[in-house]
Amino acid sequence: MTSEFDLIEKYFSRRPRHTELGVGDDAALIRPTSNAELVISTDLLVEGTHFFSDVDPASLGWKTLAVNLSDMAAMGAAPRWATLGCVLCRGFGDGALTASTSALSASDSWLDQFSRGFFSCAEHYSVDLIGGDTTRGPPGAATFSVTIIGEVPRGEALRRTGAQVGDNIWVSGTPGRAAMGLAHLQGRVVLTGATLSECLAALHRPTPRVELGLALRSIATSAIDVSDGLLADLAHVLTCSSVSAHIQIVGLPEPGLARDTYLSGGDDYELVFTAAANRTPEIAALSKLFELPLHNIGMICGDEPGTLCVFDNCGADITPAHRGFDHFGQSRFEKAS
Amino acid sequence: MTSEFDLIEKYFSRRPRHTELGVGDDAALIRPTSNAELVISTDLLVEGTHFFSDVDPASLGWKTLAVNLSDMAAMGAAPRWATLGCVLCRGFGDGALTASTSALSASDSWLDQFSRGFFSCAEHYSVDLIGGDTTRGPPGAATFSVTIIGEVPRGEALRRTGAQVGDNIWVSGTPGRAAMGLAHLQGRVVLTGATLSECLAALHRPTPRVELGLALRSIATSAIDVSDGLLADLAHVLTCSSVSAHIQIVGLPEPGLARDTYLSGGDDYELVFTAAANRTPEIAALSKLFELPLHNIGMICGDEPGTLCVFDNCGADITPAHRGFDHFGQSRFEKAS
Repeated sequence: MTSEFDLIEKYFSRRPRHTELGVGDDAALIRPTSNAELVISTDLLVEGTHFFSDVDPASLGWKTLAVNLSDMAAMGAAPRWATLGCVLCRGFGDGALTASTSALSASDSWLDQFSRGFFSCAEHYSVDLIGGDTTRGPPGAATFSVTIIGEVPRGEALRRTGAQVGDNIWVSGTPGRAAMGLAHLQGRVVLTGATLSECLAALHRPTPRVELGLALRSIATSAIDVSDGLLADLAHVLTCSSVSAHIQIVGLPEPGLARDTYLSGGDDYELVFTAAANRTPEIAALSKLFELPLHNIGMICGDEPGTLCVFDNCGADITPAHRGFDHFGQSRFEKAS
Repeated sequence: MTSEFDLIEKYFSRRPRHTELGVGDDAALIRPTSNAELVISTDLLVEGTHFFSDVDPASLGWKTLAVNLSDMAAMGAAPRWATLGCVLCRGFGDGALTASTSALSASDSWLDQFSRGFFSCAEHYSVDLIGGDTTRGPPGAATFSVTIIGEVPRGEALRRTGAQVGDNIWVSGTPGRAAMGLAHLQGRVVLTGATLSECLAALHRPTPRVELGLALRSIATSAIDVSDGLLADLAHVLTCSSVSAHIQIVGLPEPGLARDTYLSGGDDYELVFTAAANRTPEIAALSKLFELPLHNIGMICGDEPGTLCVFDNCGADITPAHRGFDHFGQSRFEKAS
C-alpha cells in the first residue's frame, strides 16, 4: 500500500525555483525579496460544497491553486509559494476502487491527474509548492487546503479600504458564467455550444487575473475577487471603505437566471476594482493588452456605508434581496437526486 | 443563522501584534524581519484520524496550533503568524444540536471554546492569526488546517540533513505518553492517577518545544519533532543525513505496550536532535534551564544509510519491525464499538 511519504514523493515533489528548502523537512525555508511585504491567504475546497465527487481531477488540481491565486490578484501581489493540504478518502492510493461511493477514493491515477493539474497552474504562474500535509478522512469528505504566499512592494497592495466617492467601479470578464455552468450540470438550465463550453471552463478551470492585479497596483484604489458573487463581494469593499455604490450595467441581461447569476453567482474569480475617473484610458489600454473585457459598471457614492443599488437600463431599481453565496447557507455541489 | 462572515468576526478576529493587515481582506500582509528566512509548515487535523468526535473543544483548539508550533521548534524557528482553515459540519453555528451524530456539529459554544483554546496557545507563543477560511462539510468530517510561518536568522535553521557520524542522539521529555493516553481511552490499557493525567495531557494538550528549538540553533546538528513515533521520525533524519543510528536507552521499559509506545508512539511532539559529544554540558544546562528531561539515547553511525538498531540494557538487539504511524495505515481516533 502506498504510504503518506510515498504519495508526497511521487506526486508532490517538483524542483522549486525560488525556494531555499522545499518539501521534505519539518518546514520549508524561503528568503523574501528585500523590502517586500508578504501577502498570505488560505482557501479550502471541500467535496460536496465546492466540487462534485466526480469532478475531473486535473481540473480540480488547477482550480485548487487558481482560487488562491485569485486572492493574490485581488491584492496586486506576485504569487510565489504555496503549501497544499490533502484530506483523501480511506483506500486512496491503493490503486483500486474501494467500497466508498466517492470517486475520490479511487486510485493513484486520480492523484496523478490532480497533481498534474495543480502543477500546470503552478508553473504557469511561477509558484513553488514548498510543503503540505497528506492525510486520510472519511469517504465523501475529500478536502484540499492551499495557503498561498505572494510578494508586493511595501505599501502598494490593493486593499478593500481604498474606494473613494466618485471612483468608477470596474469588473473584469463576465461574472456569472461559472454559476451558469453549475446550473447546467444540475439540470436547472440547458446550455449548448460555445456558451456551454465557456461556462464549464469558468466553473472548472477559472483563470485567476494575476497579471491584471499586478498592473492595477498603481491604478486602482481598491480591489476584490468575485468568489461569492459580484454584489456580495463589492459589498465587502463598500463596508471596508465606508462608502456606497450605484450600479448600472449597460446591456444587462433580461430578468431571469442569466441576470441573477451575473449579479450574484460566485466562483468566477474575476476582479472588481475601483479607480478614479481620470484613469479610464489606462484601464482601457490594459483591457486591450490582456485581451480581457473590463467594464465600468457604476460609481462609488457617499450614501449609507455598505449599501448598493442596482438600476436597469431604464433607471428602474432592480437591487436583488439576495446578494451572493454563503458557505453556511446551502450546498452548491450536490446533484439533484 | 450565523454566516461564515459572522463566525470569523465573532470567534477568530483578535488584534494582531506584528502584522500589517490581518483578517478581513483578500489576504493578510506581513513585513518579515530584515535578513530573516521564513519557515513555513502546514498540518491537518481530521476528525476520526487525529481526534475523537467528542474531544474537548478547548484542548483541540490548543492542539491544532501546537502541532504546527512543534514544526517551528524542530527548525529552530520563532513562530510568528498562522492561518486557520476550518471545515465544520452542516448545522454548525446554528446554536442547536443537529441530526448529525458528531458532537462537532453542535453549537456556537463549541466554537467559542475551540477558539479560546487556539488563542491561548497563540498568545503563549506570540503567534498572530492573520487569516483563514471557514466552510462547511459533511457530518463526521470536521477538519482543521493550520499554516504556520516563523522566522530564523539566515542559515541557522535546524535541518534534517546535518547529523554527523559520532554525534549523540538526544530526545526531550518522554515520548509515548500520548500513545499511552490514547490506548487508555480505547480500553487497551488501564492507567490511573498521575500517570493517567500526564498521558492524557500529552495527548490532548501537547507542549511544543519552541524554547528548546530556539536554544538548539547553535548547538544541534539536526532536529525533528516526534509526530509519527521516535524511531520513524529519527529514520527520516538518518535518511536525509545519509547516516545510521545505534539506539540504547538506559532504563528502557520492559517489553510490552510501554516500551513499544516509547519507541513507536506518535503525537507527542517532543524533539529528537543530534549534537557533537562536546556539546553535552550545554545540553545538560538547557535541560536544567527549561526543567525538561533531555536524554542521550544513542549515537549516529556510518552503517547503511537510514538503518537503525535498538539495543536493550544487556546489548540484545530489540529493533522493532514497526517503526511508527502512517496516516494511510490505520485509524487512531476511532473508539472500539
